[in-house]
Amino acid sequence: MRMIVAMDRFCGPDEIEHVEQVMAGTDVQAVRTVLEGRTHLITAERDRRALASRLRLLPGVTSVVEPPGNLRLSSRAHRAQDTVVKVSDVSVGGDPFVVVAGPCAVESRDQLAATARFVALGGAAVLRGGSYKPRTSPYSFQGLGREGLGLLAEQRAATGLPVVTEVVDPADLAHVAEVADMVQIGTRNAQNYTLLREAGRAGKPVLLKRGMASTVEEWLLAAEYVLAEGNPDVVLCERGIRSFEPSTRFTLDLSAVVVAKRLSHLPVLVDPSHAAGQAELVRPLALAAAAVGADGVMVDVHPEPSTALCDAGQALTPAGFDELVTALDSLLAGMRRPLAGSLRPRGALVADRL
Amino acid sequence: MRMIVAMDRFCGPDEIEHVEQVMAGTDVQAVRTVLEGRTHLITAERDRRALASRLRLLPGVTSVVEPPGNLRLSSRAHRAQDTVVKVSDVSVGGDPFVVVAGPCAVESRDQLAATARFVALGGAAVLRGGSYKPRTSPYSFQGLGREGLGLLAEQRAATGLPVVTEVVDPADLAHVAEVADMVQIGTRNAQNYTLLREAGRAGKPVLLKRGMASTVEEWLLAAEYVLAEGNPDVVLCERGIRSFEPSTRFTLDLSAVVVAKRLSHLPVLVDPSHAAGQAELVRPLALAAAAVGADGVMVDVHPEPSTALCDAGQALTPAGFDELVTALDSLLAGMRRPLAGSLRPRGALVADRL
Amino acid sequence: MRMIVAMDRFCGPDEIEHVEQVMAGTDVQAVRTVLEGRTHLITAERDRRALASRLRLLPGVTSVVEPPGNLRLSSRAHRAQDTVVKVSDVSVGGDPFVVVAGPCAVESRDQLAATARFVALGGAAVLRGGSYKPRTSPYSFQGLGREGLGLLAEQRAATGLPVVTEVVDPADLAHVAEVADMVQIGTRNAQNYTLLREAGRAGKPVLLKRGMASTVEEWLLAAEYVLAEGNPDVVLCERGIRSFEPSTRFTLDLSAVVVAKRLSHLPVLVDPSHAAGQAELVRPLALAAAAVGADGVMVDVHPEPSTALCDAGQALTPAGFDELVTALDSLLAGMRRPLAGSLRPRGALVADRL
Amino acid sequence: MRMIVAMDRFCGPDEIEHVEQVMAGTDVQAVRTVLEGRTHLITAERDRRALASRLRLLPGVTSVVEPPGNLRLSSRAHRAQDTVVKVSDVSVGGDPFVVVAGPCAVESRDQLAATARFVALGGAAVLRGGSYKPRTSPYSFQGLGREGLGLLAEQRAATGLPVVTEVVDPADLAHVAEVADMVQIGTRNAQNYTLLREAGRAGKPVLLKRGMASTVEEWLLAAEYVLAEGNPDVVLCERGIRSFEPSTRFTLDLSAVVVAKRLSHLPVLVDPSHAAGQAELVRPLALAAAAVGADGVMVDVHPEPSTALCDAGQALTPAGFDELVTALDSLLAGMRRPLAGSLRPRGALVADRL
Repeated sequence: MRMIVAMDRFCGPDEIEHVEQVMAGTDVQAVRTVLEGRTHLITAERDRRALASRLRLLPGVTSVVEPPGNLRLSSRAHRAQDTVVKVSDVSVGGDPFVVVAGPCAVESRDQLAATARFVALGGAAVLRGGSYKPRTSPYSFQGLGREGLGLLAEQRAATGLPVVTEVVDPADLAHVAEVADMVQIGTRNAQNYTLLREAGRAGKPVLLKRGMASTVEEWLLAAEYVLAEGNPDVVLCERGIRSFEPSTRFTLDLSAVVVAKRLSHLPVLVDPSHAAGQAELVRPLALAAAAVGADGVMVDVHPEPSTALCDAGQALTPAGFDELVTALDSLLAGMRRPLAGSLRPRGALVADRL
Repeated sequence: MRMIVAMDRFCGPDEIEHVEQVMAGTDVQAVRTVLEGRTHLITAERDRRALASRLRLLPGVTSVVEPPGNLRLSSRAHRAQDTVVKVSDVSVGGDPFVVVAGPCAVESRDQLAATARFVALGGAAVLRGGSYKPRTSPYSFQGLGREGLGLLAEQRAATGLPVVTEVVDPADLAHVAEVADMVQIGTRNAQNYTLLREAGRAGKPVLLKRGMASTVEEWLLAAEYVLAEGNPDVVLCERGIRSFEPSTRFTLDLSAVVVAKRLSHLPVLVDPSHAAGQAELVRPLALAAAAVGADGVMVDVHPEPSTALCDAGQALTPAGFDELVTALDSLLAGMRRPLAGSLRPRGALVADRL
Repeated sequence: MRMIVAMDRFCGPDEIEHVEQVMAGTDVQAVRTVLEGRTHLITAERDRRALASRLRLLPGVTSVVEPPGNLRLSSRAHRAQDTVVKVSDVSVGGDPFVVVAGPCAVESRDQLAATARFVALGGAAVLRGGSYKPRTSPYSFQGLGREGLGLLAEQRAATGLPVVTEVVDPADLAHVAEVADMVQIGTRNAQNYTLLREAGRAGKPVLLKRGMASTVEEWLLAAEYVLAEGNPDVVLCERGIRSFEPSTRFTLDLSAVVVAKRLSHLPVLVDPSHAAGQAELVRPLALAAAAVGADGVMVDVHPEPSTALCDAGQALTPAGFDELVTALDSLLAGMRRPLAGSLRPRGALVADRL
Repeated sequence: MRMIVAMDRFCGPDEIEHVEQVMAGTDVQAVRTVLEGRTHLITAERDRRALASRLRLLPGVTSVVEPPGNLRLSSRAHRAQDTVVKVSDVSVGGDPFVVVAGPCAVESRDQLAATARFVALGGAAVLRGGSYKPRTSPYSFQGLGREGLGLLAEQRAATGLPVVTEVVDPADLAHVAEVADMVQIGTRNAQNYTLLREAGRAGKPVLLKRGMASTVEEWLLAAEYVLAEGNPDVVLCERGIRSFEPSTRFTLDLSAVVVAKRLSHLPVLVDPSHAAGQAELVRPLALAAAAVGADGVMVDVHPEPSTALCDAGQALTPAGFDELVTALDSLLAGMRRPLAGSLRPRGALVADRL
């Protein structure tokens, strides 16, 4: 497996040579490659932790990426440039920051229509909504199934937003892929390799949530199952991991966004709603996701959260969603990064929409 | 949801009345029931943590079980007595302690035959062997599939041991259930509800491993998916959870065995091989599993571990397996608990078998 | 313990009354209080989880804070307004965002002087530097002790920056407090109650790092030990918790910043250097800390990281520190929040300083 | 750092030679040493993970110990034989299994006297009791301090049992060491290096609890702080680690007992009371600790748990303690291991003592 040493954009030729000498001194040869205006040294050898640590500290070196041993198609060694996944006409992974929003679960035509219209006008680029819900208890609401898929198709037509929706059973994949512009694999199926393989063959981009107990490497290896089927369009989504802290449902691991983007060329979204499990934390965590370098966020919105059939406590109200997009807009302006679809009218739409 | 207060076998009537008075003082009424010679007070009300804490400390009270809100068929409130699952002619969950053993993965006729003969003579009551392997990387050995199922069927015939083997794809379930005496759901599919439901309909007992990030309650709720399909024969299996400790692959949570058996009537096995990931830890952890009250252990055995295609470092050698069974035998004797199938000849069989 | 319901700034009187009715229906009475222009309903009763969940979903309700049972002086119930801690002339906890920077360990006069000058010119408001280092191994460099304190005093005089430095032994507290403008309690002593109490009596503000295994509640209870000694000046610092993820040294828990600031009035900093353990992650995580609402960051800077005696891999180079402050400046501009001390000249200072 | 390969007691000379050849093939030379009747190969080279994995799988090899890089005095490389710590006249770490029992906190002369008499007659070899309690909240009962030490001294005289009690402040160490036969460092001070060093100089054995977030290596490095002061008498105590599982207070990590005993020659106890936080789990977990190979257990006992001032829910009643010792006795008989002090009369003593 190759090691990739990224040199600083402004480093001098002597700094590059110095790094090459250090490598040669440990018997490693590297090829110089210029990517996006920066020199990268890519080795032909397997990674060596001690060397990597030494290289990291040399002047001019920006980063040293050691792809974990098993990564292939998902690794920067395979593809150094960022992958941009097209979800219908929306680009995920490019410069614009993408907001995916909608109800956790599709509950009814009225609920979905109200939410879809609201988030479309409010700045979302993609509509989310679950029609097959993997619930911890068999006695909880399990989603509307095919009926829900029909409602999602209606709202895609009505709003023009592409749709992402979850699949939990390989047998439903054909129906889901017919409607969905991106097929979601949830955290509980993050190591359901049968489903991952099938999703890789369904002809649609795949949104792959991180398993709640998956390391970053295991998450990327799950992506390999999709990529190995010939589907290059995988979007990763960090959604919180299990830890001992009880004040949030999961511990949102924003470091993992940085690590995943260093190891892999795939775009990474963040889902603060499922991580926190509380609406009050969604806005600050979504802002942090933008600041850390994620390619977008995915949030739960519900016209009337107190009546939601699924994860009621974590959905933003329409007003909360507007506040979120307004705050994201400001923050991204400071980072010189546009919000995808931000040309759509926004602002005083709350009154209009309610 | 009901609360169950188990009184001490030798408590007096005044102690029972005292508990009832404390309950009445907080507006809870309970029905007296005698199960296995002990009085149990079962409330008609929902559980109340504060009351439970108080009751636990009263003289004569042995345990207070509060079934988590969502548990139904798996809970002691539904069924107070231990469930005994028949895996072919082997009882799991009764007094005899069950040893399930075999290779992590079925690799060849010779490898399986050698292992099966060895463990059958050495004290195993059930043969394990994976033919469909859920591997973290798509580039690792994925199992022999249907060919492996055929080899398992052969060895069941040859040794008389019932067979447990994993299923990862609902589409394979019919084939697996034809051969398997018990169908295993692995830790990565522990919240794959589609597979759990299908397994519940396959007509065979189900061995349900705990998800590596599942709480005990979530594990039991996964069992509910199987039970709710009308299949009462679920065997739970603790196999280690994710923690920060790096010296073992997972952290074996033996407390969970006690907690699961208090909340639920289902039998619980322990898999020390996958938890530790190192053969050297298997024997002491298996002994601890027996001491903590598990109904059996499931261990990896391989005729030549250094050549194993899967999880090589954790398999016991034949000699290691003999040492394990000998040590279990002694320990269980101290606990006055028999080893299932212990009437089979054992002892100086190592030489004979090699 | 009281529950605090914060109403939306723009909610109507009927919304407030509706919340009061819901409370009254469960037998809870609340007093209306206006804080910072917003109505708060503060109960005289102990917290009730179920009620809190219901109240959270009512229209007009912004947040429901349930102070964990044991919090007193640190809780919002005790003091609703944000506490601003004065570290010499620098305000921590007010509107300006504070950058604390310096070497992990004070190693020599030259090393400290170079770093201090650099960070002072580069935008730091407070100088950090450890002179007593709690090291996992007794055979690692343990700090310069009193000699290092002297060097810190010199650099405070030279740069005008107030100084924060760690104490590990109650016997050193008098010396440390003589030099330090803020005394740091590290993660390994986060539940060393003797040291916390003594620090509370030392007459200087206390920077309290979160224990690597402390819940937010336990962290605030540690702060109570300091506050209970009559010292109101506690600054909290999130620095990562233990989880199963191996790609970073600790998992930075930015949700905890939000939770701590909701439960408590104390300011909260974030230390991305010790959390990540890798210089490459410091900038994105520091930006995320600003976005999530922290009051500042604390980062390791070293003139030549490859020679550092402590945690070499995580220190920013001077150039890396400049990039961090520039990026923070932009981001905070988008959030309409100033950088503390940002009137100092910056920008093309790198050349000048090197 | 040296690697230690322990050969099987009954392996042949060809097996030993084969291992030596494999080592020589990777350029490592080893010295043969016979310890306790078994051949050990101890290398003069630094550890090599890949080699260790290969050696583990060779016939005749029982275990391969690679001391983590920083371990010195605590490691098997430093001392291959088990250390036996004398706590007054009680040996901890030898063949007999030791039961340490007593109240979590010393509350009064009557409470301590009743408990001490009970556990002394019931099979305990050492009396425990906290007089300085590190409590998460400053508003909880903090222990009787020096008064409690006096009560412990009285009960040592009355029962003849040596006493272990916790120290939390270096300033109290002299007083504590005067009374205590073994000084305890608790989990919250497991990385309080000041206290560890002072304890190393106090002239008494030290019972070192594992930090609730410490890896096994960090735990042993904490022990190095004591050992490096010239005190060889350290007893380790596993007491549960932080994990995501909420049904127990901590997750008891029994694998860590095996790992610690492989890496280190120090004795290891287990505290199931503080790990589980529930009296109902203490007996099964204590049995598991014995089965896994711990050198003893430490349990909370209280004459009337419902009135305990500290951790009431986890204390065994006198009757519960008797059941525990009886069960341990049987289990250890199966393992051919005696209970320390088991010559003392036991059995129908409950009636006598109540």
